[in-house]
Formats: sequence, structure tokens, C-alpha cells
Amino acid sequence: MIAVAVSAEETIDQNAVTKTATKETEFDSENSPFLKAIVHQIRANDPYGTYRNWSDDLLLKPYILSKKQRREISVEGDVEPLTMGRILGFYRAIAARIEQETNQLAQVVVDLSHEGFGWALIFSGRLILVSKTLRDAQRFGFDSLEKLEAEGEALVQKGIQLARKFPEVCDV
Amino acid sequence: MIAVAVSAEETIDQNAVTKTATKETEFDSENSPFLKAIVHQIRANDPYGTYRNWSDDLLLKPYILSKKQRREISVEGDVEPLTMGRILGFYRAIAARIEQETNQLAQVVVDLSHEGFGWALIFSGRLILVSKTLRDAQRFGFDSLEKLEAEGEALVQKGIQLARKFPEVCDV
Repeated sequence: MIAVAVSAEETIDQNAVTKTATKETEFDSENSPFLKAIVHQIRANDPYGTYRNWSDDLLLKPYILSKKQRREISVEGDVEPLTMGRILGFYRAIAARIEQETNQLAQVVVDLSHEGFGWALIFSGRLILVSKTLRDAQRFGFDSLEKLEAEGEALVQKGIQLARKFPEVCDV
Repeated sequence: MIAVAVSAEETIDQNAVTKTATKETEFDSENSPFLKAIVHQIRANDPYGTYRNWSDDLLLKPYILSKKQRREISVEGDVEPLTMGRILGFYRAIAARIEQETNQLAQVVVDLSHEGFGWALIFSGRLILVSKTLRDAQRFGFDSLEKLEAEGEALVQKGIQLARKFPEVCDV
């Protein structure tokens, strides 16, 4: 990916205008440690190499749902396994990012009722780093990559802050 | 129930021997705030009054499984809804007891995989009061009422101790 960036630099004169336009509409997941952490989670859960040749953006695409698309998903019945996988990927990526920054092991627990209501918790020792109530989890998704990154990164920062404030509770 | 106790005192001379013998074999759930809390959970989840005329001991009976009985339960597949109800009743009773003693609201989260492995957590604010990994949850049960009471009460006391040690984490 670095090689691609370098060659892009070299041809920057020719493509400067086009590239700027693209930058504005498409978010660059390369620069986001949080989006990279989600991609890492997806690739780690790919025992048969199905996604080996998929780009990062393609892997992140299922996280993006417009308001209209979300409304079309029924909230009757269980959360689909694929949706559950995305929810776990999101919270495991947050846990991995907090671990990287604080060196505190973080566990993820997601407890959803059959109606898509419940809790997502990330904890270290006796300290809860992330505590979110979930509702209509069947419709889990974000308007854009920017929103996905912003929401994830906010939870990461809050978690890091708590881990640094109460280190003795992590080590109970 | 106090009335019963008084009349028992009055006839103690006649029945002293018999009563002592009964005491040794049968545990008195009346004197255990924890067992009473479980019974309270069961009765609270009884919208049709099915258990109205059942004794407390009868309600607690499904929690008691001998080693042999536990071994006979398959650990293949999901945890049965009735077993799940018992697990929740156990942890909700612990949460209720901690609430009574500390005035801290406590939440229960149970996250079980389809293979009966997972976590049971009780937390208040950002503090985890009870943290248990579960395995073979299909076989959830205790050798006797004494063991049920001892294990529950130990978790209650540990939770109270943590809530008192880190009150600021409960109130985050």
C-alpha cells in the first residue's frame, strides 16, 4: 500500500485535480487506525482466505447503510449471524485499539435478546471501558465510513481515558 | 413464618430429637437472604401465578443437581431456555442482594455461545462487581442448597466489597 502511495505522489501533477475530487467523496481508511483494526478483525476471521484479494474498503462496505436501507431491515426476530459478526467486529476492533494504547487486555461481551436489544461491553479486569446499550441491533450500520470511524474512535478514546484513570481497577 | 418458628419453639420439648435430625439433612432457606432473593426472582417472573402455592424449597429444587445428573445432560447445542432462566435467576439474585447492601444499581449481562461457554457479569456504572466465565452452562446446578447459598453469598460479599472499595467507578 505504501508503494501505491509513492507512485501516486510521482504522478501527482497529472492527476492532482482528479485526486482531490476523489479525496472529498471517499474517505481514506488507510489513515484510520480504527478502520484498520476492523479490517484486521475481518481478515483474522477468514480461515478459508475468501477475502484475501478484497480491498479494505470492500471489506468495510457492509458497515455502511443509509437511513433508508436501515429502515428496510425488519426488527422482528433474531439478529442475523452476519450482522452479529459485524457488531462483534466493531467492538473487538475497539478493544484491540484500547489494548494497543494502554497494554491492558480487553474482553468483549455482547448480550442481545431475541428482539435485538441488549448490551455491548468491553472490560479489562473489573473496569468497563466501553458500555453501550444496543437497540434494533438488526439495523446495525453507519451512514458513512467517516461516521463509522468517528463513532469507533470516540469509544476508543473514552476507553483509554478510563483505563488510565482507574488502572488499579483493571488489575483487580 | 415467624409464627411457625414461635410455635416450633413451644413444642420443642416433644420434637427436639426429630427436629434436630431434620435440620441436619434439610437446609433452611428461610434464614438465607440469598436463597430468598432467588425465590423472589422466580416469583417476580411468574405472570400467571403458576408458582403461587409452591413452597420456596420446591421453587429452588431445579437448582440442585447431583454430579451424576449433571453428567447426564448433553453439552451439545444451545442452553435450554429453562436452564438459561435459572442462570439469570442466580445472577439477578446476586445483583439484587448487592443493591440492597450498597444502594448501587446493578445490571446483569449473560453472554453464552451456542456451545454453553461465555461470561456472566454484574456491573454498576463502570465497575464489574461479579465476573464469571461459564462453561458447560447446560449443566448449571449445585450439589445442595447449602452449596448454592455458599457460592451465591460468596459472590455477593465479593461484589459488596468491590462496590465499597471503588465507589467512584460505580458513579462514572
